Amino acid sequence: MSEPFFDWLHAPLRRPDAAAAAEAAARQAQLTKPAGSLGRLEALAIRLAGLQGTPRPRLDRVHIAVFAADHGVVAEGVSAYPQAVTAEMLRNFAHGGAAIAVLARLHAATLEVVDLGTVVPPGPLPGVLDRRIAPGTRNLAREPAMTDEQLGRALAAGAESVARAHAAGARLYIGGEMGIGNTTASAALAAALLDQPAAALVGPGTGVDAAGLQRKRAAVESALARARTTDPLAALREIGGFELAALSGAYLAAAQHGLPVLVDGFIASAAALAGLRLQPALADWLLYAHCSAEPGHRRVLAALGAEPLLDLGLRLGEASGAAVALPLLRMACALHDEMATFADAGVSRA
Amino acid sequence: MSEPFFDWLHAPLRRPDAAAAAEAAARQAQLTKPAGSLGRLEALAIRLAGLQGTPRPRLDRVHIAVFAADHGVVAEGVSAYPQAVTAEMLRNFAHGGAAIAVLARLHAATLEVVDLGTVVPPGPLPGVLDRRIAPGTRNLAREPAMTDEQLGRALAAGAESVARAHAAGARLYIGGEMGIGNTTASAALAAALLDQPAAALVGPGTGVDAAGLQRKRAAVESALARARTTDPLAALREIGGFELAALSGAYLAAAQHGLPVLVDGFIASAAALAGLRLQPALADWLLYAHCSAEPGHRRVLAALGAEPLLDLGLRLGEASGAAVALPLLRMACALHDEMATFADAGVSRA
Repeated sequence: MSEPFFDWLHAPLRRPDAAAAAEAAARQAQLTKPAGSLGRLEALAIRLAGLQGTPRPRLDRVHIAVFAADHGVVAEGVSAYPQAVTAEMLRNFAHGGAAIAVLARLHAATLEVVDLGTVVPPGPLPGVLDRRIAPGTRNLAREPAMTDEQLGRALAAGAESVARAHAAGARLYIGGEMGIGNTTASAALAAALLDQPAAALVGPGTGVDAAGLQRKRAAVESALARARTTDPLAALREIGGFELAALSGAYLAAAQHGLPVLVDGFIASAAALAGLRLQPALADWLLYAHCSAEPGHRRVLAALGAEPLLDLGLRLGEASGAAVALPLLRMACALHDEMATFADAGVSRA
Repeated sequence: MSEPFFDWLHAPLRRPDAAAAAEAAARQAQLTKPAGSLGRLEALAIRLAGLQGTPRPRLDRVHIAVFAADHGVVAEGVSAYPQAVTAEMLRNFAHGGAAIAVLARLHAATLEVVDLGTVVPPGPLPGVLDRRIAPGTRNLAREPAMTDEQLGRALAAGAESVARAHAAGARLYIGGEMGIGNTTASAALAAALLDQPAAALVGPGTGVDAAGLQRKRAAVESALARARTTDPLAALREIGGFELAALSGAYLAAAQHGLPVLVDGFIASAAALAGLRLQPALADWLLYAHCSAEPGHRRVLAALGAEPLLDLGLRLGEASGAAVALPLLRMACALHDEMATFADAGVSRA
């Protein structure tokens, strides 16, 4: 796959600004607290300083994108929910009743929803962009999920979202997903890229019963038997999903723009894994929000050496886990920016 | 200790409202998400419903109190910081430069600071209440830290703070502390009440070196040899601190008023332990914010069966860990209140 529409994926990523990070670390050492006593909040402020290229990072403008698409593999009976829910949830995002809509409002973050192809077109909805590629992927258990051209469009949809975020002055990018069946695609993708068996990555998702779980494992095993590959683009095409590819593309584009990313849960991490296999330096730009209750997530995070901020048993997707972690990053920045130094406050040092 | 000024501690606690909690649980099951997919945020919303006595709990008004006092045990060389820092930090709270001041401002929470007795009186400061009992406790390694009368005043100072919070319509109470030497007092208190050796509870606190740690352990061992007791009031008097007793009193008073409490770190948890030994039903009212980097905290939390929300290596005190966890509770309430139901949103169910 060396077609021109994949070339941009290999464009160089920005490098974090080591001088800004060092300046932030020096400031942390002056703030009125025992050194290190704010734990990971200190490290977050320093890291964000490096990523934003300023000793005083800010997170006032945050861009949340939710990519939605359907999955042909649902024909294998892998989900507890009917496929119509993907489009129904697009309406729920648009009307403000979904979890991520509530959180985006609470955080005054921009929320955009990108329809990459539901089985039932939702019709025009406020705040939902029509980037429909097809009415869902094909059944990854039996045939390639998408064509090369479709993969290129899905990856580009992610990059376009990041370009909008960047143009709007976003200081952090959060990507999420909605797609009945997409924990199956994510398990297949992660199993292929990590070279692990299906059983290590397949879990209950939205809540299938034991028989559903068995069908899900069988579907992933079929997919891997048909098309096991550690090539990230081949894996996305064969056993991925439109929203997964969009997230992979978005993460790489964010790193190209120098925009830090807060990664959501299992599905987002599987997409990040594909991006990391394309460009390992992507790791610099990815912060991990939480460890999902979906069992495969812990394995993916471990393989990535990721240290998620939260472990609250979340497993909703939609970028909701990242949105739940966002206040931690904002508090890290506020403390870093607003705390007094020992000198300013006239406080004695150790 | 059956003096009249301790009687209020035994007044009955409010009982959580099981009907409100059940109504909240029923609502959670209707919201547009797979059942359980918001993990601990669902449980938090349901629990807060029971504590606030309403199916739609709110956390708009939050009261943060920081109790400050000095400790005679600092004479044993147990802290990395000079004792003057306690009063210096009172000024830093008042002037808005301390971590908890930054967080309270960010969260639009009320912050009150209660001076229970620093070695150096800080003088009048905006937002700092003068409830000075003595210029610090006596050296708990060698003699009772305080008298019965002083203990009564410290406990009452906590109750008064809760009364102010309740009168102001607070929906959540957060208590914190400032006091050079108070991880030593907390380790002694927890070791006594949990009947564990000093070594199990003593840690580096603000960051003492190896020799300081040894002195700290020796101080706690002396205290326990002199006055090991599992009676909570006797333990507070012999080896506690004014701010520890104030927190114990505040927690009990909060439960008497029906005001939920978000417990901060190691010191706050040691104070909670004393309160729980006075009235085990206090447990209903205590939410645990985080697991501190101070090693003894994990043991105290385990003994309490507590499941803290965060584990971010925080060890600053001042109520800062609870303030860092506050957005999680607020998001739990916002999601619970604002998410659409399946029926309202026209989303199909599993």
